Amino acid sequence: MDELRAFLRRRAPGAGELTTARSEADEPEVLSGLYNGATCGAPLAIVIKNADARPADYEATRDVPRPSHADYPARVKFNNRHDASGGGHFSGRLTTPLCAAGGICLQLLREINIFVGAHILRVGSASDDPFDPVRVSEKDFCAVKINPLPVLNREAGEAMRVLIAKAKEDGDSVGGVIECAAVGLPAGLGDPMFDGIENRVAQIVFGIPGVKGIEFGSGFAGAAARGSINNDAFYFDGGEVRTRTNNCGGILGGMTDGMPVIFRAAFKPTPSIAAGQESVDLSNSTNTSLHIKGRHDPCIVLRAAPCVEAAAAIALYDAYLCR
Amino acid sequence: MDELRAFLRRRAPGAGELTTARSEADEPEVLSGLYNGATCGAPLAIVIKNADARPADYEATRDVPRPSHADYPARVKFNNRHDASGGGHFSGRLTTPLCAAGGICLQLLREINIFVGAHILRVGSASDDPFDPVRVSEKDFCAVKINPLPVLNREAGEAMRVLIAKAKEDGDSVGGVIECAAVGLPAGLGDPMFDGIENRVAQIVFGIPGVKGIEFGSGFAGAAARGSINNDAFYFDGGEVRTRTNNCGGILGGMTDGMPVIFRAAFKPTPSIAAGQESVDLSNSTNTSLHIKGRHDPCIVLRAAPCVEAAAAIALYDAYLCR
Amino acid sequence: MDELRAFLRRRAPGAGELTTARSEADEPEVLSGLYNGATCGAPLAIVIKNADARPADYEATRDVPRPSHADYPARVKFNNRHDASGGGHFSGRLTTPLCAAGGICLQLLREINIFVGAHILRVGSASDDPFDPVRVSEKDFCAVKINPLPVLNREAGEAMRVLIAKAKEDGDSVGGVIECAAVGLPAGLGDPMFDGIENRVAQIVFGIPGVKGIEFGSGFAGAAARGSINNDAFYFDGGEVRTRTNNCGGILGGMTDGMPVIFRAAFKPTPSIAAGQESVDLSNSTNTSLHIKGRHDPCIVLRAAPCVEAAAAIALYDAYLCR
Amino acid sequence: MDELRAFLRRRAPGAGELTTARSEADEPEVLSGLYNGATCGAPLAIVIKNADARPADYEATRDVPRPSHADYPARVKFNNRHDASGGGHFSGRLTTPLCAAGGICLQLLREINIFVGAHILRVGSASDDPFDPVRVSEKDFCAVKINPLPVLNREAGEAMRVLIAKAKEDGDSVGGVIECAAVGLPAGLGDPMFDGIENRVAQIVFGIPGVKGIEFGSGFAGAAARGSINNDAFYFDGGEVRTRTNNCGGILGGMTDGMPVIFRAAFKPTPSIAAGQESVDLSNSTNTSLHIKGRHDPCIVLRAAPCVEAAAAIALYDAYLCR
Repeated sequence: MDELRAFLRRRAPGAGELTTARSEADEPEVLSGLYNGATCGAPLAIVIKNADARPADYEATRDVPRPSHADYPARVKFNNRHDASGGGHFSGRLTTPLCAAGGICLQLLREINIFVGAHILRVGSASDDPFDPVRVSEKDFCAVKINPLPVLNREAGEAMRVLIAKAKEDGDSVGGVIECAAVGLPAGLGDPMFDGIENRVAQIVFGIPGVKGIEFGSGFAGAAARGSINNDAFYFDGGEVRTRTNNCGGILGGMTDGMPVIFRAAFKPTPSIAAGQESVDLSNSTNTSLHIKGRHDPCIVLRAAPCVEAAAAIALYDAYLCR
Repeated sequence: MDELRAFLRRRAPGAGELTTARSEADEPEVLSGLYNGATCGAPLAIVIKNADARPADYEATRDVPRPSHADYPARVKFNNRHDASGGGHFSGRLTTPLCAAGGICLQLLREINIFVGAHILRVGSASDDPFDPVRVSEKDFCAVKINPLPVLNREAGEAMRVLIAKAKEDGDSVGGVIECAAVGLPAGLGDPMFDGIENRVAQIVFGIPGVKGIEFGSGFAGAAARGSINNDAFYFDGGEVRTRTNNCGGILGGMTDGMPVIFRAAFKPTPSIAAGQESVDLSNSTNTSLHIKGRHDPCIVLRAAPCVEAAAAIALYDAYLCR
Repeated sequence: MDELRAFLRRRAPGAGELTTARSEADEPEVLSGLYNGATCGAPLAIVIKNADARPADYEATRDVPRPSHADYPARVKFNNRHDASGGGHFSGRLTTPLCAAGGICLQLLREINIFVGAHILRVGSASDDPFDPVRVSEKDFCAVKINPLPVLNREAGEAMRVLIAKAKEDGDSVGGVIECAAVGLPAGLGDPMFDGIENRVAQIVFGIPGVKGIEFGSGFAGAAARGSINNDAFYFDGGEVRTRTNNCGGILGGMTDGMPVIFRAAFKPTPSIAAGQESVDLSNSTNTSLHIKGRHDPCIVLRAAPCVEAAAAIALYDAYLCR
Repeated sequence: MDELRAFLRRRAPGAGELTTARSEADEPEVLSGLYNGATCGAPLAIVIKNADARPADYEATRDVPRPSHADYPARVKFNNRHDASGGGHFSGRLTTPLCAAGGICLQLLREINIFVGAHILRVGSASDDPFDPVRVSEKDFCAVKINPLPVLNREAGEAMRVLIAKAKEDGDSVGGVIECAAVGLPAGLGDPMFDGIENRVAQIVFGIPGVKGIEFGSGFAGAAARGSINNDAFYFDGGEVRTRTNNCGGILGGMTDGMPVIFRAAFKPTPSIAAGQESVDLSNSTNTSLHIKGRHDPCIVLRAAPCVEAAAAIALYDAYLCR
């Protein structure tokens, strides 16, 4: 539990002036499944209460959906019976239970020498150094964690910080990209068709609010390349089969090939911005404008690295169990 | 069935010199579930036989895995007991049953006025005009189908053709991007967390061999933007809620918002190329080189548009049934 | 929620001297999914705490499994890491969340004029009047609920009470049979093969601890009959198709036929008895004897009627949603 | 495949004058998944064609549903669009693919020393000797297979034969009970709540057309007993934990306890009888009478033993994989 709490703190706000002013203790309360500090076979039920909710902040948006938020489709889906305050169960806070589940999977994966790590690759126009797709290792994951922002290159982190502060000053927000890698996976994990590693990882990663794209290995860039450049040649490294490059992101035919699994997730800019926006008033079917109050992150990507790690860990551990 | 056969022909090779020389009749044989020309409630079982398989073409690769193919991980996964000829059940031919299932979903969706279409957006450096994310309609889908290549802009198609012919001449291959849109969807389809529209579509689309990335709406480009630019403002268009832009790709909080759903899938270049490649001989653990024989597409993207339509139709019809 | 609480009280102990001396408040605490007194679309999460657990009562059985209890296989399954106190997640208390889920399904079914009811058909040698399989109605379900024991015939209930009191006096326990009916179901619910109504109901009903058998309609007795006797003749009753008898229990080919669904569930006698029993000491691999302390029901069947109703409601509402 | 064919022959008709006059070759044709005589990891697809269908036999029942058959609810469920000939996908012939799947599971279970067997326990009033619930072994399963009818006691089999012949002579049919046992199961298989062994076995066994009841161990008889009689005392037999009796049918808390799993399935009499029956004409909403033509078994129980073995094998192998 100590390790899980430490992991949840990585997601929690409070890393200074750039995240939400909300105070979220994120203290996991275990209802069942834990006995003498270990899982005991009963279903593991964990409750993480939101102690600092302020429903009043959401009064203005009851009938005026926030642009690029779930408000409008949720209202349609649930015939206006849903609890709109705080985004209901479409809130970014839902990444807390995701991180709780993923944090446990990370512990289970580590027992079989599989490690997962993520860093901020891009915020707006500022870019971190990418993981080396062939040589990325647990060391890189540790290096990321000791930096103030989860990046490999501290200067890149500083540039991101400046960029986010500027956006905040402008009452605006900014998006970004998280890069995630998993190392130590044996070859042959993953299942055909709809249960391949890409399918499984994508299904979980798109569960993180704000993710609008995912690519594995050389991804969209690889789609512009020729086969002779993009193919990853096999060779024997001692008794082990490896590839010289890793444009496939460690996945062939939906299965791991023994090289690091690498992918990138694109996060849209936080839709909640202080600047005024055009919207509609659904109570009287008129066009209107909206000024959002509330305490929002100018850049959710700052807190997204552990969420992506968690999502990857859930998908990969599940694929491991299904082997 | 006539309509299904016509749809399957769009995927079949034979559109000239740029696709595989294999002759694939792709004739669906219905074993059950059809009665008097309509589904009758019994499970719909369809067999599409591969009449033109040439297992001998795959003898060379039994112990020498083709780079960037499923050969190696499949061998590890199945302890060398799998049937390697033709890629086994990791072959690109598996898109045929995918298209059969998707072709039926397309018919079911059309009955409720939902239409799905796709075109080749990019092959290497050649780009088609993108769909207009706000105004794309069934007409665009029809326009694509009457062109020799499935593109909106014939000249772009011609440039792609030249590019692919050049790659083929060089014994090489080339990747590309398919853009897909669905129109007519009501707002509010899709479910929270892991069952959102992005999650569902991604899970099926990554089932198409060669797909390495997917992005919805403004996707990776949107991740570099600010919220004030990327947010889609709501307005009333008559009695209907619409958005001025469609950077969210018609999906908010995993749910449709009533605008067109738009996404792009990145396909890696065909890994089977005529040029010699580095690989390993698993029978004696040595490094070796490989020259692939066989009849391969220099660019699978040419035949991928109906596959992506089929995948989207499966995911969207399923989301519709779960509403 | 008031209705749900009333339903949960029917399962709770305290109906006099014949049930466990445990005090179980069974107060459901709603964590999410309820808004203004109605479900709001978010997942409905309910916690029912066990406020009166006495783990010390289970110290004696840590290494000495109680005969006919889950203690022994649970220990093997979880490598002795499970929490054995109170039977862990194999305890009869798990019927509380089952009743919570089922109680909600009962409310949903009632909205579409489907009603479910159950009564004690047998306790040891004492038998209640059976439901009339053709004419059973919601009235019968009401009649059952106003009796001190959930039976149709009060005298039968009195005989059961005497029988249970005698078993308790002897430090023993007694089993029984619950009969359950559902009325108002349209014809054609249920799916082929493994998702028929019998399959669905059985899968849920066997989730109630202590159930060892289930039979639909004439069940085991019908298996001894000839077809000419057991077949249910169709006839028109006004414009409605009905059957003269209901030996099929309202289910043909796994689908409802529009007549009442009827089934019976056999409950084994409570395995926890005061009398001494033979068992093994797993800490030193010797044979030993066991005297169980704790507060146990001499006859769980007394409290089982709402559990069976709940299980049936879950299975039938699910079948209804899948129609 | 030879072993699978031999297993399918046990289900096939043709054991003399008491089964259907239909000729069913039941020859499995493997479409995929088999390579060099062994499963190769690709999905195993098997087609078993019905070569001797006579749709004309079912013309009379198109609008006049056969009593106690799926005809009526299937017509309602599928809005009269279903293929009614031969019972469609509700036909007893669907036990052929069930036996194909189960026959493969039986082979897989045997590799881990788990054996499953079944015999006819009762036909009408004629009863076979029951399995000894504590000592039943693979030998008993072999003894059953060499008898003309699948029973332990040949004389009981002869009595059944006489009884069935008499029913046939009368244009009638008769039901019965199959008893099934599985030996060699380790303790601790099975999962809580809805995925216990009873739940899993029941869900599959009720997929066999005609099954209307199932009971494990002492079942309904045990429900009439006291705990002191029904409880199974533990003892050490060498280093192994066993129980003196097996009233729980080898299952405690939904989990195997290491003793034989024993259950009985009740089959209703074949609903298709030659004698005239009351029914309705759905084409004009009148009452009518029905004389069924066609070639039907007077007692499906004769061919049901391998079906029940197959169902048990599917459920148990699945539980084994989920351990």
